[in-house]
Amino acid sequence: MTGSDAGGEARRARAYLLRVAEPPAPALAAFASARGVCEAAARVRAGQVPDPVAQETSARRELELANRDLAEAARLGMRLITPEDEEWPAWPLLSLDIATGRGLRGLAPPIAIWGRGEGRLDGLTERAVAVVGARAATGYGEHTAAELAHGLASAGLTVVSGAAYGIDGAAHRGCLAAEGPTIAVLGCGLDAGYPAGHVGLLGRVARTGLVISEYPPGTPPARHRFLVRNRLIAALSSGTVVVEAGGRSGARNTAGRASALGKVVMAVPGPVGSVLSVGCHSLIREGEATLVASVGDVLDSVGPLGSASPEAARPQRSTDGLSAQALRVHEALGGRQGKSPDGVATESGVPLSRVRALLPELELEGLAERCESGWRRTGRGKGAGGRGDA
Amino acid sequence: MTGSDAGGEARRARAYLLRVAEPPAPALAAFASARGVCEAAARVRAGQVPDPVAQETSARRELELANRDLAEAARLGMRLITPEDEEWPAWPLLSLDIATGRGLRGLAPPIAIWGRGEGRLDGLTERAVAVVGARAATGYGEHTAAELAHGLASAGLTVVSGAAYGIDGAAHRGCLAAEGPTIAVLGCGLDAGYPAGHVGLLGRVARTGLVISEYPPGTPPARHRFLVRNRLIAALSSGTVVVEAGGRSGARNTAGRASALGKVVMAVPGPVGSVLSVGCHSLIREGEATLVASVGDVLDSVGPLGSASPEAARPQRSTDGLSAQALRVHEALGGRQGKSPDGVATESGVPLSRVRALLPELELEGLAERCESGWRRTGRGKGAGGRGDA
Repeated sequence: MTGSDAGGEARRARAYLLRVAEPPAPALAAFASARGVCEAAARVRAGQVPDPVAQETSARRELELANRDLAEAARLGMRLITPEDEEWPAWPLLSLDIATGRGLRGLAPPIAIWGRGEGRLDGLTERAVAVVGARAATGYGEHTAAELAHGLASAGLTVVSGAAYGIDGAAHRGCLAAEGPTIAVLGCGLDAGYPAGHVGLLGRVARTGLVISEYPPGTPPARHRFLVRNRLIAALSSGTVVVEAGGRSGARNTAGRASALGKVVMAVPGPVGSVLSVGCHSLIREGEATLVASVGDVLDSVGPLGSASPEAARPQRSTDGLSAQALRVHEALGGRQGKSPDGVATESGVPLSRVRALLPELELEGLAERCESGWRRTGRGKGAGGRGDA
Repeated sequence: MTGSDAGGEARRARAYLLRVAEPPAPALAAFASARGVCEAAARVRAGQVPDPVAQETSARRELELANRDLAEAARLGMRLITPEDEEWPAWPLLSLDIATGRGLRGLAPPIAIWGRGEGRLDGLTERAVAVVGARAATGYGEHTAAELAHGLASAGLTVVSGAAYGIDGAAHRGCLAAEGPTIAVLGCGLDAGYPAGHVGLLGRVARTGLVISEYPPGTPPARHRFLVRNRLIAALSSGTVVVEAGGRSGARNTAGRASALGKVVMAVPGPVGSVLSVGCHSLIREGEATLVASVGDVLDSVGPLGSASPEAARPQRSTDGLSAQALRVHEALGGRQGKSPDGVATESGVPLSRVRALLPELELEGLAERCESGWRRTGRGKGAGGRGDA
């Protein structure tokens, strides 16, 4: 048997296992990892497996569709991405192994991943952030998701999302608008044509990025598959941003999965009257997500992966650094007419000796100046402070 | 000298000291507290005071306006509220003494407080929340402030604010619309007619609530006085809600003061594109404020009785500190019927030996109890989460 055949055999074994076990299949994943995927497939086929693996595989183990699935995939421009391939995102997916090892069996790693698109899965997930949220999003939510994704793409990050209507679609579009690669993770076969209104969008995603799924060609979408799929979105990203989410939405699920995988969970706030921000506000309020209001916030939150993101410079009023007494002296000065130190002391309530010391200090700061009639304020300290008098 | 004269003397002493020392006057406050206010005033008048007190009083100590101020105040329907009066809010203001004792001299307690209105300051501040924010607020911000204040007033709380245009005004109005009492704390004399557009509003505030200030009649508004005034807003409330705040606003100042006083700091989120929500988002993001999106959130944050306890700040489910296993054991317990450890182990999937160890731990936490038929849940772990279903 040649090396190429060996590779082909592992590929066929994984295609077979993806077909017979509904993800997540923690027992099968562990079994394949322990025995090697070819032996595991042979034993599943023969029904010679430990009970937990049988639980996950017995119902469909006679579905011998690996060759057909691989041929069909090739015809449709898809490929099977496996741990034997260079583009396998081993590092991001390690979080799933760790979580499963900690007993979170719902977070078992995938046996392989079906993919369609020009992007390489390992490269695209080196610096990736997930942007997800409600299907029934508001204009505000879609706008915010698109802006955020655009900014993240411009900063060189891949945006991962679920291709659903609403927030997900806006995130993919925002990323594409910045000519950045984006990954769409589906809860159905890549050929399902779902969601119907996003078939064109998925085509554009595939042009520079990737559309991926654990589900073999022909698998229809189902609610439980979206939830299962969410663990891949979380695993393939450094952090997950929830843009809009109702009170009962999957936001908590998404956030919980990302958090269990050791990923950063972020949520975007919105108007308090909006039912579609209830989920986000609740995640933030309960400490399950960090508030993010900008691309900079997201980059700060995901840390080093988000590259150079110096803390947004906090704007400073020129009087900001002044002591309380200096501020009072500054307030007591007029803008045009000069005042004597005596007059300033009376008006400010600061002792004359301190006033005499503070006026030159304010002069050094450019906040006060001497004039014929004494001391006056300069223009600089005033402008920014307008609000105080408003 | 009769008791009444003695009371009058203390009142005149405080009126004098409010006139000669610009608040906050930590040295004077300590001096008055140590020597008694009458002796303190006499010594200030004579210039026989320690240097720190002289620093605070020397510039104006010759302003003998106490009698005039008290007469003028009486003519204008104002009164001086002093620690000698029953309505002095000693308990809320204690936070200022504590903070000053910890070296936060800018948070010195007031010598006395000028007041106008039908409300009693002690009663009104028993359950009070501050609602503050930007002058240049958006329609969203004003609407939110008014709704929040209306809801808090309907729940029996007093709303404290600063009478400024924008958020403050909306907060007072929302409270009045619910026929609740509200307190306006000014950074100028009560007769300053400031802000000009809120003279009518302040009249309405006084009808059921209070307009108060440390500043003697005739004191003009000034930026530093607004900052100094903020400590009273914070001290007189169990918590402070910032509704809208720009990046350079006083929100950080307000939040910092409230936090230094052991009060709950809350912020309302808004659309991420709005510059007037930048300050709120930044407070939440940096953990300086808790996100509040509803009246219920505020009530949860300040605690059931509006108590000033900082521990009450973050809503805690009694099960919050539990490990994952303990939580599963707790979930497996029934509320009425007791269960055997065996039954709990089966239901929770936690090994029996761990269940046997965890049940007494839950008992210590008050979350489980023994009964005839085994173990059951107590009421406590359940009830606290009631709001979660709303």
